[in-house]
Amino acid sequence: MTSDDVTARWASLAKPPGSLGVLEDLVERYAAIRGGVSIDRKAVYVFCADHGVTVEGVSAYPRSVTAAMVANFLRGGAAINVLCRHHAIDPVIIDCGVDAPYSAGTIDCRIGPGTRNFAVEPAMTRDECVRALDNGRQLAATAAERYDIIGLGEMGIGNTTSATALLCAYAGADPAEVTGPGAGLDAAGVSRKASVIASALDLHRGADPLAAFGGFEIATMAGFILGAHPRGLAIMADGLISTAAVLAARAIDPASTNVVLYAHRSAEPGHRAMLDALAARPLLDLSLRLGEGTGAALGIGLLESAIKLHREMATFAEAGISSGNPDP
Amino acid sequence: MTSDDVTARWASLAKPPGSLGVLEDLVERYAAIRGGVSIDRKAVYVFCADHGVTVEGVSAYPRSVTAAMVANFLRGGAAINVLCRHHAIDPVIIDCGVDAPYSAGTIDCRIGPGTRNFAVEPAMTRDECVRALDNGRQLAATAAERYDIIGLGEMGIGNTTSATALLCAYAGADPAEVTGPGAGLDAAGVSRKASVIASALDLHRGADPLAAFGGFEIATMAGFILGAHPRGLAIMADGLISTAAVLAARAIDPASTNVVLYAHRSAEPGHRAMLDALAARPLLDLSLRLGEGTGAALGIGLLESAIKLHREMATFAEAGISSGNPDP
Repeated sequence: MTSDDVTARWASLAKPPGSLGVLEDLVERYAAIRGGVSIDRKAVYVFCADHGVTVEGVSAYPRSVTAAMVANFLRGGAAINVLCRHHAIDPVIIDCGVDAPYSAGTIDCRIGPGTRNFAVEPAMTRDECVRALDNGRQLAATAAERYDIIGLGEMGIGNTTSATALLCAYAGADPAEVTGPGAGLDAAGVSRKASVIASALDLHRGADPLAAFGGFEIATMAGFILGAHPRGLAIMADGLISTAAVLAARAIDPASTNVVLYAHRSAEPGHRAMLDALAARPLLDLSLRLGEGTGAALGIGLLESAIKLHREMATFAEAGISSGNPDP
Repeated sequence: MTSDDVTARWASLAKPPGSLGVLEDLVERYAAIRGGVSIDRKAVYVFCADHGVTVEGVSAYPRSVTAAMVANFLRGGAAINVLCRHHAIDPVIIDCGVDAPYSAGTIDCRIGPGTRNFAVEPAMTRDECVRALDNGRQLAATAAERYDIIGLGEMGIGNTTSATALLCAYAGADPAEVTGPGAGLDAAGVSRKASVIASALDLHRGADPLAAFGGFEIATMAGFILGAHPRGLAIMADGLISTAAVLAARAIDPASTNVVLYAHRSAEPGHRAMLDALAARPLLDLSLRLGEGTGAALGIGLLESAIKLHREMATFAEAGISSGNPDP
């Protein structure tokens, strides 16, 4: 079923034309990506890694929380597990470089025990960046055989600092305007975080942004988007971190964003700037800032509701109603 | 579980404080209404009626579509049926005064075969209005024994004209600013509809707005809200029509709005004005304008996701993470 077929069926259903608003556009976009409207096979991929920049005091939580949350994902106790159970979505946990021994139950895409501190040196080497991108492309190749849509989730203490630096580097944003509290910094902490980003932007001017500022999870996600695009695998972006990966993928291949849907606008100020840079209109605006792919899971749930409406509603003919829209 | 208990548990869960944004407030509000967070028993009540004002050419569809859509609801082919199946919500169809013989399968709250034309006379008599309100109160008494939450749905060709007139009468809005296309009027039709409303506001100045402009379905919904309030039955409002019923209920008992949650902001310009008048922040903004309770069903789905997060997520203690939010 093409996007045009979807549009024609929307017009045939017993409802005022266009009255399902954004949901009608959403199913059309999904069909343009997939070439159909099946959405039985759903996953959220949670890309996890640690960040060297945490030594600069840019996060409200210690670095050890990344590994603790990976364990929580594997036990099924995290927010993303709850939403995946509720919406019949598979959670898939990917270790892209957590500072802890490998955990059985995760997919091993480990580049190293976290990035280096980008306040003083590039977060990763060129080779590490290429390997992370390649890991993402390979994950996408496998995912495209098993799933219709993948929500992008992540976990990594310090990764809002990395994502905000990427926003500034790719879209020319001002750290003072787009740096937010992440997991819960106070005003002084946000100010320190913005200063760290501003200095690092000077330090790495002219360098490849993804290698300079990126997390291993962000580079792997960027590769995943690049690999999803030629295979027509639909992607549901989540918040600040996954949208930074979209910016990175776009810098490598602008067409890759064609497979991306945007679940929500998060509470992080940088996320609004990213969505504006991508001319993206997200589905939800609930002031979420938890990450893990929670917004993406809710977005997939909404997409599934829209697809069921498209598939199951009676047509005007079936309901015995003239669709002629007569003006009495 | 009180609202304070809900707040305390949110704080104990393994996530940054407040990071589920609007969803945290939503569960707290629900618990304040219900005294707990159980949401296993869900319904959308679809209040249906015809409107005398349709003879003024204020709708894109003929009056007969109301009865045809009631038949579609009973066959399970309408948008609200699809969403109710997907979200395990019971659809309950209430005939408040459809211009057609009684249909088995609907709840009989019929006041008459549609209201009178409020362009020339009051839509209903004082006695009809009181009977419709009483019907709604009685429905709420029964609903409170069977359900935790009721989404407000409706069907009635002409009812955006009635609801917009009620907005103008209750909140002092200008018909030229708040009248919208409803099911699909063109610009000339919207202009005619606004003129009909403006003239009727002059004709009925000083009269009870609900009797002057209301539909039987709107008056019954208003009574339903009034009956839900003392019983702590949660209400999920939908779009323009159900929110007009909230305005009518508030005019009778201002405290009654305490049990109302707001699912979405519809594409109808008058709905934004209503939500502003109620200082309501809706959950969704998807440019829906289908009615039937479709937005309410999506809102109930989102509330259920939020409640499952609250119920099922691991605490900091369970996840072995310090909640002390140390600043490194």
